[in-house]
Amino acid sequence: MNPTLETFSQGEEIVTGHVIDTNAAWLSQQAVQLGFSVTRHTAVGDKLDDLVALLQEISTRADCCICTGGLGPTTDDLTTEAVAHAFGLPLVFDAFAFARMQQFFANRNKPMPEANRKQAMLPEGALRLDNDWGTAPGFAVQHQRCWFAFLPGVPSEMRPMFLEKILPTLPRRFSLKPSTLITLKTIGLGESDIQQRISAVAIPATVQLGFRASLNEVQTKLLFPNNYSITDRQSLVAQIAEPLGDHVFAIDGAGNQSGDLVAVVDALMTQHGKTLAVVETVSQGLLAGLCLGADWLLETRYEQSVGRLRSKLNITVAGDDLMAQAQIIATALQQGSDADYVLVQLYAGDKNQFNDRNQAIVLYNVLLAENGFKTATHTVAGSGKRKQNQAALLALDLLRRHLQQKA
Amino acid sequence: MNPTLETFSQGEEIVTGHVIDTNAAWLSQQAVQLGFSVTRHTAVGDKLDDLVALLQEISTRADCCICTGGLGPTTDDLTTEAVAHAFGLPLVFDAFAFARMQQFFANRNKPMPEANRKQAMLPEGALRLDNDWGTAPGFAVQHQRCWFAFLPGVPSEMRPMFLEKILPTLPRRFSLKPSTLITLKTIGLGESDIQQRISAVAIPATVQLGFRASLNEVQTKLLFPNNYSITDRQSLVAQIAEPLGDHVFAIDGAGNQSGDLVAVVDALMTQHGKTLAVVETVSQGLLAGLCLGADWLLETRYEQSVGRLRSKLNITVAGDDLMAQAQIIATALQQGSDADYVLVQLYAGDKNQFNDRNQAIVLYNVLLAENGFKTATHTVAGSGKRKQNQAALLALDLLRRHLQQKA
Repeated sequence: MNPTLETFSQGEEIVTGHVIDTNAAWLSQQAVQLGFSVTRHTAVGDKLDDLVALLQEISTRADCCICTGGLGPTTDDLTTEAVAHAFGLPLVFDAFAFARMQQFFANRNKPMPEANRKQAMLPEGALRLDNDWGTAPGFAVQHQRCWFAFLPGVPSEMRPMFLEKILPTLPRRFSLKPSTLITLKTIGLGESDIQQRISAVAIPATVQLGFRASLNEVQTKLLFPNNYSITDRQSLVAQIAEPLGDHVFAIDGAGNQSGDLVAVVDALMTQHGKTLAVVETVSQGLLAGLCLGADWLLETRYEQSVGRLRSKLNITVAGDDLMAQAQIIATALQQGSDADYVLVQLYAGDKNQFNDRNQAIVLYNVLLAENGFKTATHTVAGSGKRKQNQAALLALDLLRRHLQQKA
Repeated sequence: MNPTLETFSQGEEIVTGHVIDTNAAWLSQQAVQLGFSVTRHTAVGDKLDDLVALLQEISTRADCCICTGGLGPTTDDLTTEAVAHAFGLPLVFDAFAFARMQQFFANRNKPMPEANRKQAMLPEGALRLDNDWGTAPGFAVQHQRCWFAFLPGVPSEMRPMFLEKILPTLPRRFSLKPSTLITLKTIGLGESDIQQRISAVAIPATVQLGFRASLNEVQTKLLFPNNYSITDRQSLVAQIAEPLGDHVFAIDGAGNQSGDLVAVVDALMTQHGKTLAVVETVSQGLLAGLCLGADWLLETRYEQSVGRLRSKLNITVAGDDLMAQAQIIATALQQGSDADYVLVQLYAGDKNQFNDRNQAIVLYNVLLAENGFKTATHTVAGSGKRKQNQAALLALDLLRRHLQQKA
């Protein structure tokens, strides 16, 4: 049996729905991979009685609880006081924590408000968790069955504190059997296409198969139990990857993290030292926007009307063949540009088809690279926003395939 | 005292952190505006004992509970069974619900899987909530102190079911005093700037003032109690709006919903029948991408190097004055374009300053419109992504100010 873990989020802004609690999900993902069974998430507002009752409930129910929020300097930050009441621990002044807070303000040339003094009061006997990313220190305390850790609610403080101050101590405190998560990231295949392609692969019952489809990629996830052999794991991953072919743009896990498609393309373009110019139609600037700050992206143009673009580039030949048109545009654009590669994206369909989520449009992508043209045709459906996003990613994916073949 | 409401989300994908629970926040926002006090959010996985215990807890603690998820056809969808156990209600076959589900599949020319039959089993005496957006019917049941409503977890089914099947019945079931929320949406002012500007306005203690800063706008929120007079409300809103000046791009609430800055600009451009061409630098395609599908946006260009752009436009004059440069570029671009307006965005700073979250850059925005140039200068800081976003919005905001002055 895995040890059980709960999360607990404090904040009126969470229970009133003004802020979506992303901390619970983030912490739970970490906890599952570490080998915990996550059993419950709870969020409560700033009523002391509710907080006290909840802490007492959890202390008899879970082995571990990670609590976020309510450690700030204002009167509605009640977590520490609730811990004192719930577990019968008086609050004591922590001189070291206070000195760190004074230093935090001194570094910023700001006077420390008197209200912050409260943040240096910690429950007697608690383990202080220093906050290198903000003012409020966290703390940890055992009560009844449960080991509680209290962290600030701001994700930019909470996440590094969990990773650096809590995570390394958990294997000492709990008997954990961490599993290994391998994620195959694909583009251009739906979840059901993937299921069909891998249906012939025999997956042992101990390996958990899951899918996660987002706008940007489909992830095929394999969760291997702690005692699974590395050779067998690698063999199974290879069997799953094989029928997915070059739709797989990255395999993450077991120490390898490649990021999203844009990060993969960015690394490849930088490695090969090439530059790019782009004509966007359906993606309407999104392709450029996703590649923010990339040195290799020299220019992009969005044109609402392809006829208008043609006349600016002095192209006189028109015609019905959109792939041929895209090639002519790419050639014309390269003449006026010093970019190594040119990527042109055209589409068949009108404005109504573009905006109607029940109608599809056909994308014609052309990459003009060192050995001539690479082309790809795709049918995309869904809302205008979904079509825009798919168009940006599928154009970048043509570039990714070319660069991975070169490598 | 307002009646209390809790949310309860069922799903292993939620407690393991694979899906962020957005239903709890959405339902809570609705509930607060209706006049409930939201006291707690809970999420649990697919263990029957946990579900039963939670339902029993809530039935003695809250006046109303909206539950989402666990109504699907598979074996890990346990909510209905948990209700039966927790409240001692046998499950009975609902012939009407079953006929609707058969019709749902018939409309899609698909056979109904045998597993779906389970979704027509409802707790004895429960009120069936028909689902016009999917297969699983919801239901509602009173137990002890609490009125429970059970809805599917998919937001695209849950939200319309809440709005159409539950919301209209709540005033009959609870003594609710709905408040009125007015939101002033601004761009170009920080939260503390706003607080300082409105500090002289006397806000009655019964009106709740709040702020919400996102990447795209800062919202100043005023929550008026049920018995507040409309005249007094309008007068207070006007007093708050006055010192914020034309930073306010929309005032929402009490029946008026203008959407975000892009929606406001879109409505104004359509109303005035004007067209636009844009040069993006810092925003790098994002401005175009945000205006997805706008008929009035004829073209945008992103250029990494302004020198490169100048040479393409045959501009020979360079110089240190970026605002003057932007005006020359706008004029040159208009000559080759049939757009009514041209918007050009340049910036002072290098790549390092752009990427460093601790360094600021200065934006120079120029709008070439019917009566010559409008200009605006802004200092923006933060991560590259934040600078990109601010640059896109501040350029659009120059256009918004021009159009609102014309109107």
